[in-house]
Amino acid sequence: MTLASPPQTKPLTGEELRKMNAYWHAANYLSVGQIYLLDNALLKEPLKLEHIKPRLLGHWGTTPGLNFIYVHLNRIIKKCDQNMIYIAGPGHGGPGIVANAYLEGTYSEYYPNISQDGEGIKKLFKQFSFPGGVGSHCTPELPGSIHEGGELGYSLVHAYGAAFDNPDLIVGCVVGDGEAETGALATSWHSNKFLNPVYDGAVLPILHLNGYKIANPTVLARLSHEELESLFVGYGYKPYFVEGSDPETMHQLMAATLDTVIHEIKEIQEDARNNGFTKRPQWPMIILRSPKGWTGPKEVDGKKVEGFWRSHQVPFGELASKPEHIKLLEEWMKSYKPEELFDENGKLIPELAELPPKRTRRMSDNPHANGGLLLRDLKMPEFENYAVEVSESGKVTAEATKVCGKFLRDVMKRNLESRNFRIFGPDETKSNRLDAVFEVTDRTWEAEIFPYDVNLSAEGRVMEILSETSCQGWLEGYLLTGRHGFFSCYEAFIHIVDSMFNQHAKWLESCFDIPWRRSISSLNYLLTSHVWRQDHNGFSHQDPGFIDHVVNKKAKVIRVYLPPDANCLLSVTDHCLRSRNYVNVIVAGKQPALQYLNMEAAVKHCTKGIGIWEWASNDRDSEPDVVMACAGDIPTMETLAAVDILRQNFPDLKVRVVNIVDLMKLQPETEHPHGLNDKDFDSIFTTDKPIIFAFHGYPWLIHRLSYHRTNHANLHVRGYKEEGTTTTPFDMVVINGLDRFHLAMDVINRVPHLGYKAAYVKQMLQDKLIEHNQYISKHGEDMPEIQNWKWSY
Amino acid sequence: MTLASPPQTKPLTGEELRKMNAYWHAANYLSVGQIYLLDNALLKEPLKLEHIKPRLLGHWGTTPGLNFIYVHLNRIIKKCDQNMIYIAGPGHGGPGIVANAYLEGTYSEYYPNISQDGEGIKKLFKQFSFPGGVGSHCTPELPGSIHEGGELGYSLVHAYGAAFDNPDLIVGCVVGDGEAETGALATSWHSNKFLNPVYDGAVLPILHLNGYKIANPTVLARLSHEELESLFVGYGYKPYFVEGSDPETMHQLMAATLDTVIHEIKEIQEDARNNGFTKRPQWPMIILRSPKGWTGPKEVDGKKVEGFWRSHQVPFGELASKPEHIKLLEEWMKSYKPEELFDENGKLIPELAELPPKRTRRMSDNPHANGGLLLRDLKMPEFENYAVEVSESGKVTAEATKVCGKFLRDVMKRNLESRNFRIFGPDETKSNRLDAVFEVTDRTWEAEIFPYDVNLSAEGRVMEILSETSCQGWLEGYLLTGRHGFFSCYEAFIHIVDSMFNQHAKWLESCFDIPWRRSISSLNYLLTSHVWRQDHNGFSHQDPGFIDHVVNKKAKVIRVYLPPDANCLLSVTDHCLRSRNYVNVIVAGKQPALQYLNMEAAVKHCTKGIGIWEWASNDRDSEPDVVMACAGDIPTMETLAAVDILRQNFPDLKVRVVNIVDLMKLQPETEHPHGLNDKDFDSIFTTDKPIIFAFHGYPWLIHRLSYHRTNHANLHVRGYKEEGTTTTPFDMVVINGLDRFHLAMDVINRVPHLGYKAAYVKQMLQDKLIEHNQYISKHGEDMPEIQNWKWSY
Repeated sequence: MTLASPPQTKPLTGEELRKMNAYWHAANYLSVGQIYLLDNALLKEPLKLEHIKPRLLGHWGTTPGLNFIYVHLNRIIKKCDQNMIYIAGPGHGGPGIVANAYLEGTYSEYYPNISQDGEGIKKLFKQFSFPGGVGSHCTPELPGSIHEGGELGYSLVHAYGAAFDNPDLIVGCVVGDGEAETGALATSWHSNKFLNPVYDGAVLPILHLNGYKIANPTVLARLSHEELESLFVGYGYKPYFVEGSDPETMHQLMAATLDTVIHEIKEIQEDARNNGFTKRPQWPMIILRSPKGWTGPKEVDGKKVEGFWRSHQVPFGELASKPEHIKLLEEWMKSYKPEELFDENGKLIPELAELPPKRTRRMSDNPHANGGLLLRDLKMPEFENYAVEVSESGKVTAEATKVCGKFLRDVMKRNLESRNFRIFGPDETKSNRLDAVFEVTDRTWEAEIFPYDVNLSAEGRVMEILSETSCQGWLEGYLLTGRHGFFSCYEAFIHIVDSMFNQHAKWLESCFDIPWRRSISSLNYLLTSHVWRQDHNGFSHQDPGFIDHVVNKKAKVIRVYLPPDANCLLSVTDHCLRSRNYVNVIVAGKQPALQYLNMEAAVKHCTKGIGIWEWASNDRDSEPDVVMACAGDIPTMETLAAVDILRQNFPDLKVRVVNIVDLMKLQPETEHPHGLNDKDFDSIFTTDKPIIFAFHGYPWLIHRLSYHRTNHANLHVRGYKEEGTTTTPFDMVVINGLDRFHLAMDVINRVPHLGYKAAYVKQMLQDKLIEHNQYISKHGEDMPEIQNWKWSY
Repeated sequence: MTLASPPQTKPLTGEELRKMNAYWHAANYLSVGQIYLLDNALLKEPLKLEHIKPRLLGHWGTTPGLNFIYVHLNRIIKKCDQNMIYIAGPGHGGPGIVANAYLEGTYSEYYPNISQDGEGIKKLFKQFSFPGGVGSHCTPELPGSIHEGGELGYSLVHAYGAAFDNPDLIVGCVVGDGEAETGALATSWHSNKFLNPVYDGAVLPILHLNGYKIANPTVLARLSHEELESLFVGYGYKPYFVEGSDPETMHQLMAATLDTVIHEIKEIQEDARNNGFTKRPQWPMIILRSPKGWTGPKEVDGKKVEGFWRSHQVPFGELASKPEHIKLLEEWMKSYKPEELFDENGKLIPELAELPPKRTRRMSDNPHANGGLLLRDLKMPEFENYAVEVSESGKVTAEATKVCGKFLRDVMKRNLESRNFRIFGPDETKSNRLDAVFEVTDRTWEAEIFPYDVNLSAEGRVMEILSETSCQGWLEGYLLTGRHGFFSCYEAFIHIVDSMFNQHAKWLESCFDIPWRRSISSLNYLLTSHVWRQDHNGFSHQDPGFIDHVVNKKAKVIRVYLPPDANCLLSVTDHCLRSRNYVNVIVAGKQPALQYLNMEAAVKHCTKGIGIWEWASNDRDSEPDVVMACAGDIPTMETLAAVDILRQNFPDLKVRVVNIVDLMKLQPETEHPHGLNDKDFDSIFTTDKPIIFAFHGYPWLIHRLSYHRTNHANLHVRGYKEEGTTTTPFDMVVINGLDRFHLAMDVINRVPHLGYKAAYVKQMLQDKLIEHNQYISKHGEDMPEIQNWKWSY
């Protein structure tokens, strides 16, 4: 490890300063060019309207600051041979980061068409925000990026996620002062309580006080110096201020500050690595206050632009109607002196081309930012070894997530040494009954630990903070840099990360079309403490809608599993942990519940994803009278209990029980790679018999997935219809009509020719519902016959 | 205004202290009783298993702290005749807040069945977390509550929302240290930059350092005193610490601290109100560190409980199997000396009954917490006056949100004096082109203002922070306390508040069944900068799925509008601003777009919510050959352009154009109050003709809403299928197949007997698509014939 030299006030020689400033100018020049120019890229002829893009798109305001930081981080990388990646919180700074990847040569290596010459620059300019070109953010197409930044708030959690278990890495993370107002970002400063100086890398947050958002000042930029300093001291950092606008002064100040903070980071790490972790360090950070739109036009049409929000996007347009604007643009771009930066052929001059680091030390080519390059398979225990013994279906009980917890414990154990697997959860790992993992590791905790604390340690690998956004963001950063993870969450509150899920799914969708992006591990959710067993926490804790949200994203990245019991959960979890490039959503209960399939049957069932449960059906060798379909643990139990009632009362009724683990099986094969073709679907669901479908979530989702199918008109779905309260578990299904009695009545109402007994049984079922109501009102719990129900056959 | 007396170290006399402590004991006693007891409520006989609930549900840990705060706020209310409400961030403290409402007599006034005697206490105990009873959080059923608290993170934004424009009100807001880790809460501390000491009330945040979450310490409780103090100084507060566990000391300390902070609040307000606003005050706050499960059992079965996370929920169970636990419970409850608190009949003894404030000064009966009581209608300008002149359909253009902005400006203007209307947005009011409102008010900004800033002032009524969660939370708090608001947001990023929307919708759903909860103003969203016009910001900014999310909630609270043009947007906005108890989602574009309906037609169309556009159809007096349906501004334009092509090429083809403003019209009347009955639906959509439906959002939503309908099999929907990038506006619809050429081809493919010309026209349409691709690749913008297209007829 190379320690940075002790800080000096003016560390840059005149020569260094000149070169760095020129390099910054080159990046700024290329940024402006991307926003404005179609042609005449090096301004070798007078600028004319025809050289300018007809639609001006892009954002200038944050860009010069991002470029300034970039060139200074490059200096540090070279000086210390530092392993470093760059996260640009202000996603709108895309042109700057693209410019830097181009200046470093990486861009042309990945996209040879964008060559290191005038023709390449012209193409670089044209493609930006242009149809068929590249987007205006740090999209997946941009080498070196793990953070698109279009939706603000996640830079810092991504940075920490990347730093975990990467002891040599420093993640330079620019946090925009607009972004800093979001909730996700505001709490993510506390990530420093979860970063271990021995085993993890470091994050260097650079809060960029650019001063303005789209049309407003930012909150943080208008705090007093004292308040701002207090805030970050309170967050646990040691803030260093770099403030000003004079380039020469700012270069020296930034260089000196970076020398200092890198030195401090290394000191912290050396101390902890030599002497062991003792207490949470006060990590340094930088607060950079520079003018928005720095080096751009100071005024346009008499209005303040540099240092104000008017420079946020394209600082001026109307070039067709205002010829003086063409002049202004030309003067602005020429102020960077392109003729001194690029040679005759448009190639960066050698003294500047030498400035950035080389090969994989370039932040644009660091393998951590293409995590699949570094991905190693998890060492997996045989999940079959954790099987619940199920000699007869529907007779024994187990807690599915608890069983899964033992499997996860051993996944954790086997990969402790490789340090590439973590479990995430908002203070719910124990509540979700995955606490077997604490037999082999602890919760990550670098803050103070008291003697009576349990399962907390600085080296723990279970990451718990009461912030779904932090869990999600850490995990995303961890996966994108080539590691594995597992996120368990209360089902209702996973909606807190709906929008973060959106962005990650979109990232994955885009990566399918980028050949050099290597596969990364899937994002695995276990949603438990689910809608049907939040009877005690009531209505606010009851929402199964995340599945609905998820299936709006492209089929190629989305998988949804509803394992009906513990062995199926084991099989599904194993599958998900081995998969790549997906978002896997698993929904499973944590409460004691009946078990149906032995391990062999579970594997077979989960592999198919959908199947007729012969052991519960009595339609062998013939068409059934009714199909009873179910997806989800509680709906499966209620369906089987209904079948039990029906078979006892109507021995001649031929019932087919279908269980769905892989929800995407219901979609047509043309819509989802897992989808059944119509023939297979029809052979399972028939083409004309009533289907009573008991579903874990909102019932209309099943219709949405299957409206194309032949027998859709006979499909009757029951599920959660937003009826919730604090009540008993069984009452939850009753008030939503998903209980065994309603399901059995649904069958009686739909199957013809049940004979004289139909009316009698229906009355009996209605009486049962009344009895249930009376019982729970008196006793506050479900009738023993409900609590102790088991499958009869 | 009564100033609190100058602070004293020990302000409580022995008598006061004794009574307050006894009152606290009473609240704690009633809290424990709710969690544990079915009978023997006053412990007049030895406690037996049969007196105890079979299912023990509820949370003790946070409750004694909440009760402690409550009795101290009561003292201040009486002392200063203070108008105050209480927000319990730790929603799990429900039993404590219920207990206090009961002790104040409010509970029995609202629910006479829960009377002020032994029988009433017994019922109070039984109903808690019991089927048919009340939930374990501060649900809408609880008088005095505006904050359910089940999903953590929103207490402080709700508190600020309640305080805006309520100059006499102080909102006591307990922030749990678990909740404080969430993103939403972490950024909401900055709400103090938006609170005006002249016109707004005050928020008194009480950060409750209870130390633990479900199974972890909390981050904030494990900061050093110095860091913690710095953090809140950095957030702009003046923190006061109240720390300890000895009740007597803590009572004096809390009373003294409250005297001080209330005094400071009043001084701040007096100064600003007498001398005008000069600078953002440093508002006081309290950091209360008290043991979790305070006064509960110290240990259970040899394990630490008080002051640890084991006291989070029910501190001990297993009462059937461990008789010593029954003893433990009895001792614990008797430690509060119920016989000294309640008389023979179970009524609170007079000296304690006198302690809390009376009537509407009781926090449980403050009218601000039943906002409908205080709600006054908005004074509305005639929206018709803002109409865009549309003499011919589809020929003139206007920017819909810009037109709406002028209307909103005058809504704002008319209600400036009553100060009961605010506009909210995450730095997007100008970007969303509602900036006409800045002609009559500014953005709210209590932080520093520079001379060149525009539209910022301490009295501004447009609330902008780059935090969707803060905007949403403020607005919820503002509405729940009886005011009106309007929230405009980029469509894609409204998903950030998916879960907050869920909770507000659930609150509204519950209120329908609570007769004493008075109607409140609807929560109005304007989603703009929508998926079809985020062509420049790219894929991360493209997501129309909020509608899908919203329609999962109960039909009685959900309304979704897709006005096709400016006049329709005006009509819909007017309607939404007048409505009550709904969540209204309006989706409308901000870009120049064709206008179709004059104001008279727009009002008629929006009132019906769906209609055949005769002027665009040519099926008069007969059945059409095809129905072209559309919902949303861009789909409407593409549909009309497709109809234009079809009518020009197939003059005999009878096309019916149907436009849908009110999306819920598509659902059956049995599912949604706005739903069309089948007869009306069939008369519009026919029972057997092809329907080509161009939809703003994900296409499957239309299927989900209409799968019951007769003609569903002939319904072909086009919408956003998650194809997005940075490109031209028209290319966005092309890549999703929603463009005029694809729509026209859909018709040609589905309508039989179009004759020889069909193949020729199809080829022409395909050529057009190729021409489009070539044009945009070269020019970077859409072909002039696309950009300038107008309706021909």
